[in-house]
Amino acid sequence: VTSTGVARHRVVIIGAGFGGLAAARALRREPVDVTIVDANNFHTFQPLLYQVATAGLDGDDVGYPVRGIFRRQRNVAVRMARVTAIDLARRVVSTNVGDPLSYDSLIVAAGAVSNSYGVPGVEDHAFALKSLDDALAVRQHVLARFEESATDPAAATDGALNVVICGGGPTGVELAGGMIELFEHVLAKDFRHLDVAHAKVVLVEAVDRLLGTFQPASSTTAQRVLTRRGVEVITGVGVASVEPDAVVLTNGRRLVARTIVWTAGVKASPVAAMLGVPLTRGGRITVDGGLGVPGRPGVYAVGDIAADGDHPLPQVAQPAIQGGRYVARAIARELRAESPAGPFRYHDKGSMATIGRHAAVAEFPNGRRLSGPLGWLAWLGLHIVYLMGFRNRANVLLSWTWNYLTYDRAARLLTGEEEEAPTAIP
Amino acid sequence: VTSTGVARHRVVIIGAGFGGLAAARALRREPVDVTIVDANNFHTFQPLLYQVATAGLDGDDVGYPVRGIFRRQRNVAVRMARVTAIDLARRVVSTNVGDPLSYDSLIVAAGAVSNSYGVPGVEDHAFALKSLDDALAVRQHVLARFEESATDPAAATDGALNVVICGGGPTGVELAGGMIELFEHVLAKDFRHLDVAHAKVVLVEAVDRLLGTFQPASSTTAQRVLTRRGVEVITGVGVASVEPDAVVLTNGRRLVARTIVWTAGVKASPVAAMLGVPLTRGGRITVDGGLGVPGRPGVYAVGDIAADGDHPLPQVAQPAIQGGRYVARAIARELRAESPAGPFRYHDKGSMATIGRHAAVAEFPNGRRLSGPLGWLAWLGLHIVYLMGFRNRANVLLSWTWNYLTYDRAARLLTGEEEEAPTAIP
Repeated sequence: VTSTGVARHRVVIIGAGFGGLAAARALRREPVDVTIVDANNFHTFQPLLYQVATAGLDGDDVGYPVRGIFRRQRNVAVRMARVTAIDLARRVVSTNVGDPLSYDSLIVAAGAVSNSYGVPGVEDHAFALKSLDDALAVRQHVLARFEESATDPAAATDGALNVVICGGGPTGVELAGGMIELFEHVLAKDFRHLDVAHAKVVLVEAVDRLLGTFQPASSTTAQRVLTRRGVEVITGVGVASVEPDAVVLTNGRRLVARTIVWTAGVKASPVAAMLGVPLTRGGRITVDGGLGVPGRPGVYAVGDIAADGDHPLPQVAQPAIQGGRYVARAIARELRAESPAGPFRYHDKGSMATIGRHAAVAEFPNGRRLSGPLGWLAWLGLHIVYLMGFRNRANVLLSWTWNYLTYDRAARLLTGEEEEAPTAIP
Repeated sequence: VTSTGVARHRVVIIGAGFGGLAAARALRREPVDVTIVDANNFHTFQPLLYQVATAGLDGDDVGYPVRGIFRRQRNVAVRMARVTAIDLARRVVSTNVGDPLSYDSLIVAAGAVSNSYGVPGVEDHAFALKSLDDALAVRQHVLARFEESATDPAAATDGALNVVICGGGPTGVELAGGMIELFEHVLAKDFRHLDVAHAKVVLVEAVDRLLGTFQPASSTTAQRVLTRRGVEVITGVGVASVEPDAVVLTNGRRLVARTIVWTAGVKASPVAAMLGVPLTRGGRITVDGGLGVPGRPGVYAVGDIAADGDHPLPQVAQPAIQGGRYVARAIARELRAESPAGPFRYHDKGSMATIGRHAAVAEFPNGRRLSGPLGWLAWLGLHIVYLMGFRNRANVLLSWTWNYLTYDRAARLLTGEEEEAPTAIP
């Protein structure tokens, strides 16, 4: 059954995100040799990056070493490397280090990167929030502005402390909610001599409501809670350009800020383009009903990097996890010469976004909604459950309890050199 | 009583280490305005830096935000800045940001920095272990060498994975013990295809025994335990020079290693030289029996930066803490026009060094010794107690429990850019 006759079936997985990990784990009892390739030596729990950016969690809490995940799974090898080329004809993946990797099955799960949509200045002056390094850079940048203003209080009134977040989806909403809490509960006390009340957190969304993929009632809740807590929410106005110290809106308004975060959209990882197959408008790989790349047997794409033209799935963890497992099962059936399973069906488990202390919105597939403290508790519980590893779970639970009881955020050390320019957005 | 007649007595403290913090806290009920200046926005718990370097603890666990420490102490202002000049005649401290700080009392508690003793190559090719950034850089460097070797297994046999630690004092012993555990219990499992057994941890000490300030029996214990666990211990041989990939000993032997850590000695912070007063051989400020700078009323030096010529104190936390409190009391007595207290007396509480799992040495002033599991438990307990802040304590306790039960080390994420060159040692 294997292509070489003797050697074991080789599976290469690109990406150690939710999709890649789910696939590799689901292959644990199969007679395959898996190699998982990722540019980082750790899995990033992206849903909590905004908490790192707002000093609620340590960076180490939302990452988990990939080698640790597969320590007991003997059929997985890990390679920390960047993919440089994919040769579908020869079935080889090349990386920036090490020998090229030959595969019998390829699972592309490289995820998404931030998308500037060509808005001028975004790539040069705005931070993304897609990686742990992004989150640490945002935190560093915000805290450093406060420290600077402490010795130059006049600067604080010039908008040096302001944070503008472009994009009112879940990431933008969660970041805005976490940032205003950091300002009010922590930084206002840390910097008693600064007029932190003059520091603004602004959330800008081009369409006419926040959380556009949620029900309108959730959007209303999010906007009401954020506004009440002090975030200036601007909807229905786009971003015309980003300058080093301001965001210029399409209505001509200029929002002065030294910290600008771009969460307005994503596109597929550049790895998608290496396949040389048709891509969707967002650069995603077009897959068939079985998550396979049409005309390329043995090649699959799952998660944010993949799209079934007719039914684009939400770019969150669940479709990636379910897709990864589905593809692993498909490979296992193929090896056992069983007939292919039916097409991939995404089981929607609902959507959630937290807005801050005691406030979140949660929507379930049956149309029910939760908001307020109940939604918030559901959000907390679910994220603890899905976090990787006992130690991270315990650490996060401890930090959240601490933050909740004390209104404090301990993760605000300024280590390393500050990035002069924001993380480049590809 | 104050020098200005109306304004409150101004105390400037240089350094937010053990000495500076102890002084500022001991002044909490006094009618003074304290400004504490530190280059970092956090206090570093230096005794546990080696655990960060060996992936046992997260960086955030051993730092605590200075502003958080003084949130409820209204008479303390915090300035994150580097001291650039001290004018003892005009009683002014200048920093790289903000207006110069005038003082009535000055407490210099800037600590120590690594000392290369002029050994060629140390400053260019060796890491120090004096700051949190140092510790994170060592961790990053060690882990990155393993990741590199994973795609080039031949490199592993060339000594790329080797770690040479120069200096057999407590820091060197603790780092060597932690490093060999990281190698054996974690990296050997993470990198199953690498022959990690070929990776060496070498500890080099110029005098004829480790832990030279401890009793000979403790030195013997440390050497025996480290050797049994796989560290190569070399005593009685100095370091002639450090090259990019090797340490050359005075006996001509060349120890190949890509990671070289220099813990062989310290000298006073460069701040000492800004006072323009006589310094000791190690660059320390010579103080009188009351920790004052002779002939400079109102100027004190505590901790690693200070030395009483006749009785140099060990450069650990306790003398700094006790010195800081003593000076705070001296300032308070002066303000109340009370007669000066007697000279500073250091109460020796003993010395400890951990060697690894179940192994540590502890010595008490009455001459008693503890080693093995009991010494190790004493070490654990004491370090938890002295850590700053409930959250850090709980996090450290959790990590240690996790590490102990699983033999794992979770804090091994490779974030940020790797430093091309080691941290420069002044």
